[in-house]
Amino acid sequence: MCVSESVESWCSIPLHTFQLGSMSTNNSPTADVDNTAVLHLGIGRPYQTIMLENEAFSCFVFYSVLLVIKMYIIAIITGQVRLRKKAFANPEDAQRHGGVQYYREDPDVERCRRAHRNDMENIFPFLFLGAVYSLIGPSLAVARAHFLVFFLFRMLHTVAYLCVLRAPTRSLAYVVAQVPCVSMAVQVLAAVASSW
Amino acid sequence: MCVSESVESWCSIPLHTFQLGSMSTNNSPTADVDNTAVLHLGIGRPYQTIMLENEAFSCFVFYSVLLVIKMYIIAIITGQVRLRKKAFANPEDAQRHGGVQYYREDPDVERCRRAHRNDMENIFPFLFLGAVYSLIGPSLAVARAHFLVFFLFRMLHTVAYLCVLRAPTRSLAYVVAQVPCVSMAVQVLAAVASSW
Amino acid sequence: MCVSESVESWCSIPLHTFQLGSMSTNNSPTADVDNTAVLHLGIGRPYQTIMLENEAFSCFVFYSVLLVIKMYIIAIITGQVRLRKKAFANPEDAQRHGGVQYYREDPDVERCRRAHRNDMENIFPFLFLGAVYSLIGPSLAVARAHFLVFFLFRMLHTVAYLCVLRAPTRSLAYVVAQVPCVSMAVQVLAAVASSW
Repeated sequence: MCVSESVESWCSIPLHTFQLGSMSTNNSPTADVDNTAVLHLGIGRPYQTIMLENEAFSCFVFYSVLLVIKMYIIAIITGQVRLRKKAFANPEDAQRHGGVQYYREDPDVERCRRAHRNDMENIFPFLFLGAVYSLIGPSLAVARAHFLVFFLFRMLHTVAYLCVLRAPTRSLAYVVAQVPCVSMAVQVLAAVASSW
Repeated sequence: MCVSESVESWCSIPLHTFQLGSMSTNNSPTADVDNTAVLHLGIGRPYQTIMLENEAFSCFVFYSVLLVIKMYIIAIITGQVRLRKKAFANPEDAQRHGGVQYYREDPDVERCRRAHRNDMENIFPFLFLGAVYSLIGPSLAVARAHFLVFFLFRMLHTVAYLCVLRAPTRSLAYVVAQVPCVSMAVQVLAAVASSW
Repeated sequence: MCVSESVESWCSIPLHTFQLGSMSTNNSPTADVDNTAVLHLGIGRPYQTIMLENEAFSCFVFYSVLLVIKMYIIAIITGQVRLRKKAFANPEDAQRHGGVQYYREDPDVERCRRAHRNDMENIFPFLFLGAVYSLIGPSLAVARAHFLVFFLFRMLHTVAYLCVLRAPTRSLAYVVAQVPCVSMAVQVLAAVASSW
């Protein structure tokens, strides 16, 4: 991050680099020049770019988006298993794929759905906790450790679920992934409480 | 808040243009004047107003809130179908509406619940992806296109689900609505990666 | 946008009060000194701290994190009921706890799962609506009332669900908790619409 140079030369900042309400930045090439919506904070970069300069937040976003993509992949897998096992949740789908007798449940489909639901129960709260935790100014190394542990053990949870790994593997992955979540929740509560 | 010292040393800045900790703005009529919690960014408007001046974020918030309201409406419809079909998920509810024999499942209720669950699987990740995507400074036109496609095809998805439209309509709406989500996920990953 | 006046007089700001890119703050003891990622906004505190100085947002975060912890507790209760009733969702879990005959459903487990799902349907949207609502600059007192009503009636909802309270209690708690959510949704839509 080469911010020091620009800070040093702030006395001579041309006003056009400090404009509020235009979006003629060099690092967002798709920017609409007439867009009057973005706050420049004195360094020629839009507000959004600065937002992402919170490295803990960047790190959180990186792992979160990967986890969201993982959830999308579970949805695709569920659809594929439905097609392969011919087990559809809706009669109109069954009708289209061979007949209403395929409007039925299937254990493999249900397994995918449980994996997906468990992700919703755990990854969605992480999307909230991780974002708020990033805002309270954690050490980057500590924050990264939280996010990485959650990411790795949620990946393991999904693999253990879909590949039917031996019994406590999935539960263990779930428990370990909860540790950084509870840690973040406690730290956020402490930060909010201390600000009161 | 011991900001006054540093504010005082900013000597040449007119205090009213950079006040930290008062909320006497003209554009939030509900503002509590004694509220010392809002950061003014030098232009007499609260931090929050500036946040919403990110037009891509505003646009995202607009469609997102409509989608959340849509999900609330599905919940209401589910309740109405439960009452009309007399199919309750809990014995205590059934007891209150005619007897424990109405503690049972019903295909129409299950259809509503699947529509609701599918929304959770797809709209909740959008709430995250869209917010983060708005922060990386997209073109307003491109961002609006992403949000609008998602919004329209999720609306179509719900209509197709609840009205039992012909078979590939619902699946098609799901797939098309996923396109802007995957696009946003990829762009956010690229933005985060390039900031490292 | 009349920022130019204040910007012109910024040459007299001591650089150390406006450093961008170092994180040597006194109020985040865990901060990594070499972390160049945090934006200081001229007052010696990191961006994140200022974020939490939005008291409505702080208040929202406080109740939200408590609700997330409540959801985690429901998950733990579900697991305990599964163990006590010997009713497992996966054959591999049943195998490990006495045999595949315990791969079965149980009404008490299903009750916990319904409570958890209802939380997902309602608390997750709150995590979004409350955050955005905090950003539009509500009165702290009004915002706190919104969050507190939601928090209290979602707690009541869970108690009513898990303890099988008499019939309309749970539904009533659900309805009352929806009131602040719909109110926030309407206010956010109004704020976004007025900014266009």
